[in-house]
Amino acid sequence: MAKNGQWRLRTRPDGMVSEANFEFVQEPVPEPAEGQVLVRNLYLSFDPAMRGWINDVKSYVPPVQIGEVMRASAVGQVLRSRHADFAEGDLVTGLFGWQEFALCDPQRGGALGAPAKLPPGAAPELALSVLGATGLTAYFGILDIGELREGDAVLVSGAAGATGSVAAQIARLRGASKVVGIAGGPRKCAWLRDEAGLDAAIDYRAGSVSRRLREEFPRGVDLFFDNVGGEILDAALLNMAERGRIVLCGAISQYNDEKLPPGPRNYMQIVIRRLTLRGFIVIDHMKRAPQAVAELARWVAEGGMAHAEDIQQGIENVPATFLRLFDGSNLGKQLLKLADAQASPGSAGA
Amino acid sequence: MAKNGQWRLRTRPDGMVSEANFEFVQEPVPEPAEGQVLVRNLYLSFDPAMRGWINDVKSYVPPVQIGEVMRASAVGQVLRSRHADFAEGDLVTGLFGWQEFALCDPQRGGALGAPAKLPPGAAPELALSVLGATGLTAYFGILDIGELREGDAVLVSGAAGATGSVAAQIARLRGASKVVGIAGGPRKCAWLRDEAGLDAAIDYRAGSVSRRLREEFPRGVDLFFDNVGGEILDAALLNMAERGRIVLCGAISQYNDEKLPPGPRNYMQIVIRRLTLRGFIVIDHMKRAPQAVAELARWVAEGGMAHAEDIQQGIENVPATFLRLFDGSNLGKQLLKLADAQASPGSAGA
Repeated sequence: MAKNGQWRLRTRPDGMVSEANFEFVQEPVPEPAEGQVLVRNLYLSFDPAMRGWINDVKSYVPPVQIGEVMRASAVGQVLRSRHADFAEGDLVTGLFGWQEFALCDPQRGGALGAPAKLPPGAAPELALSVLGATGLTAYFGILDIGELREGDAVLVSGAAGATGSVAAQIARLRGASKVVGIAGGPRKCAWLRDEAGLDAAIDYRAGSVSRRLREEFPRGVDLFFDNVGGEILDAALLNMAERGRIVLCGAISQYNDEKLPPGPRNYMQIVIRRLTLRGFIVIDHMKRAPQAVAELARWVAEGGMAHAEDIQQGIENVPATFLRLFDGSNLGKQLLKLADAQASPGSAGA
Repeated sequence: MAKNGQWRLRTRPDGMVSEANFEFVQEPVPEPAEGQVLVRNLYLSFDPAMRGWINDVKSYVPPVQIGEVMRASAVGQVLRSRHADFAEGDLVTGLFGWQEFALCDPQRGGALGAPAKLPPGAAPELALSVLGATGLTAYFGILDIGELREGDAVLVSGAAGATGSVAAQIARLRGASKVVGIAGGPRKCAWLRDEAGLDAAIDYRAGSVSRRLREEFPRGVDLFFDNVGGEILDAALLNMAERGRIVLCGAISQYNDEKLPPGPRNYMQIVIRRLTLRGFIVIDHMKRAPQAVAELARWVAEGGMAHAEDIQQGIENVPATFLRLFDGSNLGKQLLKLADAQASPGSAGA
């Protein structure tokens, strides 16, 4: 009898999340009831926001409960379907969690909506990165929240990460006069310059970020897309142009702090420089997703949008892969591969 | 020979500003050259922003230099004029500084523009409070930056101060569903309820501001006008409605801190609650000042806008009066009276 390997939340982290916060269990693979679909996970997605989901605090989604399978986006393949809209072999994406098999109920949905079929020909890796919630976060963040204008001098933190790398490139493709990314280490900085086509990269591990910002932006930053928070946000606040805009996407530097760390010390610069800061959550903007995905897909197809994936392997390595987000190991989208897609009955006959 | 008593910046404060940071000197009253005007100060205005002007840091105006007369707004009366636009007896307002007599050069102006004549019949106290930069800060902050909408639940900190009290009442007059002010002590809170007509007042000295905010705003704050920063801002961040707006006008709680204090610890709420924070400086909005002053004057004339002034007396008490802003002594606009207006040649003959 086939087993479903699952990682469940065992304890809530105090400070830095660790593998010990999760426990591995095996259950029989469930049978779909009428209206349900059984999905085999192919790729799991790892996102910084997941760190917030395991704190016991009210947020934009309810926290994962102790004993629950860890919530995560994934791409899977329909193994058995008892729902008219889904056929065996279909590639689907949704919040399928840290497990090998997921039982889905398309009627019920979830925070990111019901399981959705991938468009024909879509690569699972891209459906979880540039063409998924990650890329949409960058798209809506830079264009709708940040209101990018032609000629803007743009700064992106976490720029070699999945969202930051897309945000920086959208700015470049949509007419920014200059785009600079902040990342950790020479490998990521080289990728930003050579692959992503940014004007410059600032290695936050290699010296004063403030000094480098003054060099790169003598007239100040018009638009800052911030994934990182903490000292990076503080340095940027001192280098914003008058009436600059800051898009707050997240604060990965702080997610594992045991206590809430101090906020941005230089926040009075918001007054002095007449800044606008806006926070957002991608799920509010999903109505425009089809249009955004089409534009992102075109940029990828035309070679204008570089993308990188860090793909780990094996159900046993799931929690360790999650930790890679917080020690800066990953360049681009952090994924883990569980299985290859199987030729579906339909495609085998084609 | 007449003397001009002046308070000059002697040393920059480390932390809390004190009287010892200023020194009193007397100079001969100067004679206006061609094109200049000699003004006798009647009322000096005291504003929290002045604390920032004496730090040696780059800001929206250059810092006051050691040995310079302390910069301050004032209302004065023209004593001698060698400029065609100004006549003896005219009441004027401008950055005349902490002194009894000021030599003005209408061609040169300053950060707040050239000396301006008061409209006929304007009371000097009102020209420095509701109908001056103080009231305009409230007006543009609530309406243009905060984009007040009918039905908004509005919170104002420093609500018994000169700007906060006007901001809160504009919100009430322009259709907010609820307006709550935060102030220190029962006297100010009673004024907010009984004179300014707010729905409620929260005494930040009398217990948990967060708890009181939860009681007053069970569905969250739509628009928060913040003068105070620090713990008040942190408490408000935890009680904002989704897509709420925060207008950052200043942070009086922090102006005297020796080191930059930590910023708002709860700033990730900006992301989680999809907030917008905007800072502004009133001098950017002066084009719309005539329209704003007209509306403010109408509200005052019709009795819809309560205003309070704390008027100290005497050139010798100028630095001590400045300190009243930071220990919470003042209810409403902090002023100091130096002299009564004299009947002008024109008005004497009328």
